[in-house]
Amino acid sequence: MKRNISKLFNIIREERPLIHQITNQVTMNDCANVTLAVGAIPVMASSPEEAAEMAMLAKALVINIGTLRSETFEGMIAAAKAANKSGIPVIVDPVGAGATCYRTSSAMEILKVIRPAVIRGNASEVNQLIGGASTTIGVDAGRVPISNAEIAKKAAETYECITVVSGKEDAVSDGNRTYLIRNGHSMLSKITGTGCMSSALIACFAAVEKNILSSAAAGISLMGIAGEMAAASLSKSEGLGTFKVRLMDFISLMNDEMWDKGAKISEV
Amino acid sequence: MKRNISKLFNIIREERPLIHQITNQVTMNDCANVTLAVGAIPVMASSPEEAAEMAMLAKALVINIGTLRSETFEGMIAAAKAANKSGIPVIVDPVGAGATCYRTSSAMEILKVIRPAVIRGNASEVNQLIGGASTTIGVDAGRVPISNAEIAKKAAETYECITVVSGKEDAVSDGNRTYLIRNGHSMLSKITGTGCMSSALIACFAAVEKNILSSAAAGISLMGIAGEMAAASLSKSEGLGTFKVRLMDFISLMNDEMWDKGAKISEV
Amino acid sequence: MKRNISKLFNIIREERPLIHQITNQVTMNDCANVTLAVGAIPVMASSPEEAAEMAMLAKALVINIGTLRSETFEGMIAAAKAANKSGIPVIVDPVGAGATCYRTSSAMEILKVIRPAVIRGNASEVNQLIGGASTTIGVDAGRVPISNAEIAKKAAETYECITVVSGKEDAVSDGNRTYLIRNGHSMLSKITGTGCMSSALIACFAAVEKNILSSAAAGISLMGIAGEMAAASLSKSEGLGTFKVRLMDFISLMNDEMWDKGAKISEV
Repeated sequence: MKRNISKLFNIIREERPLIHQITNQVTMNDCANVTLAVGAIPVMASSPEEAAEMAMLAKALVINIGTLRSETFEGMIAAAKAANKSGIPVIVDPVGAGATCYRTSSAMEILKVIRPAVIRGNASEVNQLIGGASTTIGVDAGRVPISNAEIAKKAAETYECITVVSGKEDAVSDGNRTYLIRNGHSMLSKITGTGCMSSALIACFAAVEKNILSSAAAGISLMGIAGEMAAASLSKSEGLGTFKVRLMDFISLMNDEMWDKGAKISEV
Repeated sequence: MKRNISKLFNIIREERPLIHQITNQVTMNDCANVTLAVGAIPVMASSPEEAAEMAMLAKALVINIGTLRSETFEGMIAAAKAANKSGIPVIVDPVGAGATCYRTSSAMEILKVIRPAVIRGNASEVNQLIGGASTTIGVDAGRVPISNAEIAKKAAETYECITVVSGKEDAVSDGNRTYLIRNGHSMLSKITGTGCMSSALIACFAAVEKNILSSAAAGISLMGIAGEMAAASLSKSEGLGTFKVRLMDFISLMNDEMWDKGAKISEV
Repeated sequence: MKRNISKLFNIIREERPLIHQITNQVTMNDCANVTLAVGAIPVMASSPEEAAEMAMLAKALVINIGTLRSETFEGMIAAAKAANKSGIPVIVDPVGAGATCYRTSSAMEILKVIRPAVIRGNASEVNQLIGGASTTIGVDAGRVPISNAEIAKKAAETYECITVVSGKEDAVSDGNRTYLIRNGHSMLSKITGTGCMSSALIACFAAVEKNILSSAAAGISLMGIAGEMAAASLSKSEGLGTFKVRLMDFISLMNDEMWDKGAKISEV
């Protein structure tokens, strides 16, 4: 898998795929910048009037329910249906599923009417989607009794798509094969949007690589490795502000060699 | 008061309270990050479909009218009423009150139908709420003929809640006792969102400390001290971009000892 | 022209004009901060309930369709009509015109019912507005067969306003005279919002200088010069995160002398 992924960094920067993102208002700017940092082109267009048309121009689509509204939901469904029809991969980020009825039912409705290529969430969000107990705290993961690998595998089987469960160890599964990614740093959970940005990165890789299991592992491991490098670069007088800046630095500086050296991926 | 506040830094980081924020689109990302930086967990959920449910999961609620829309207003009222019923403190930030009729009447309507624990605004915003002359320039403070301490005291009496008036000297009052906080730096008014972020910080402290007068003084003084440290750390070739990054750095690095050393709080 | 522009830096910082911006959700925070960095005061108020009232309090208005919605469109038209009536310059940024029917028709509708002082976009966006072939990729410029100078001149003639076409070389035209600005750096296209921020800067200059051709050249050249300085300041281990921070630094540090030294403006 590693050989397959490392070559993708150059491909994204050559092809510059357009990544359509219908995402939340909180982390929208970070998601656009991370998309540019890895070499792709972001576009955020959520209006029902244009969402489907824009989706068909893109090479991947992200659906993120972080600050969902009924009008945006309409745009999401229209865009995702158009993407499904055109064979464009759809990455679904069920932010906060389990925290409120509205989020849970919206996430379930999305997964009922469209076919995702990838679902990415934290353990309690994804566990909620497969009927597990909800422990989501706002949009953060609560404690879940089963492992990330088990949740990812079960969700991948249920929704017949690649599933990524983010956490201390990230799990990526297609239902048959499950990988654990042991990259990352605790500071990644102390700034907002690292989950959303990971979904955006997965979309960038899925836009240029049809093996979506590899694309998902690429996106999530890139965030983890850049997080490690950003944390390691901090002096004692630097905190979360500088960490976020460096995170973006290292995503933009990442290449095949750095990634190869840093990635800790193993099959379960 | 100082002894009461300094212990709160550790408590927030241990308890990690969920802070629900229905706030403006401009500074939403900064408010989420500042909440994480001080050790709490942010969630932004403004849809009428979920605002009340989310509020009841939280330990404090922020209502900020910086980019108000009718749909968001509905969510605010629903969330604040739910918070009132459950005894969750509500922090109201009347951004731009006095600048347009819509903002003024919306702020007044909010204060009519819900019970705030804290009101935080600049002098012309809060002066507007107590029937003073409006001099708000967009969302910035215009000149006001009476002192921040007087405005804070009068608003605290009128609305029977803690009131914070931000400015060169911040005033915090419960109507009986009024404190002046002489921290801060002029650069804080040259980046967007420091007022909104102060309201978010006040909510973080109010989530773990029932003495809301202390919580309000804690939040507003933390922003001021971090602003001083950020400004002092700049080299000649660094400007407002680096200032904002360092501000977040120092909020995340702040502890009881640093706060104790920096806080300039005195009763009027 | 250069002598006319360099004196404006001090004027903005003395007068602190209020700049009303109805802009997109992605880059709103950056636009507010860049406005403050150059010395003006931003206010973002897009609700139909207050947009017109706020516009009349301002010294310039930006209309940016980056994440357009029907409700925001209504607010834009109301604000721009009020600005037109009061003689307040309106800067129109037709983000993504040409990418979807909704964006193209909305941009055309805006230009039909209001009188802009400035149109600023990339080559494919502005070319679309003058009936040229659309090649917009999401919100980025595609290849266009004619030069920026030609597009700017023709759009200026068609809409009887100053037109700025951003790109490797920026063109600014009033239909009679056309200037090329050879400032900038490729990294400016690798972070989101530099186009939107340029429009905000143009508005800041237009708020204090009635010669709008100069104001437009000032805003767009400032972004270019700051971009050059930011890129030059980076070490090998710094990337796009640090670049964005430094860009804001240099905009806030810019003065007449630095601008004079850096600006590369020549008439076509």
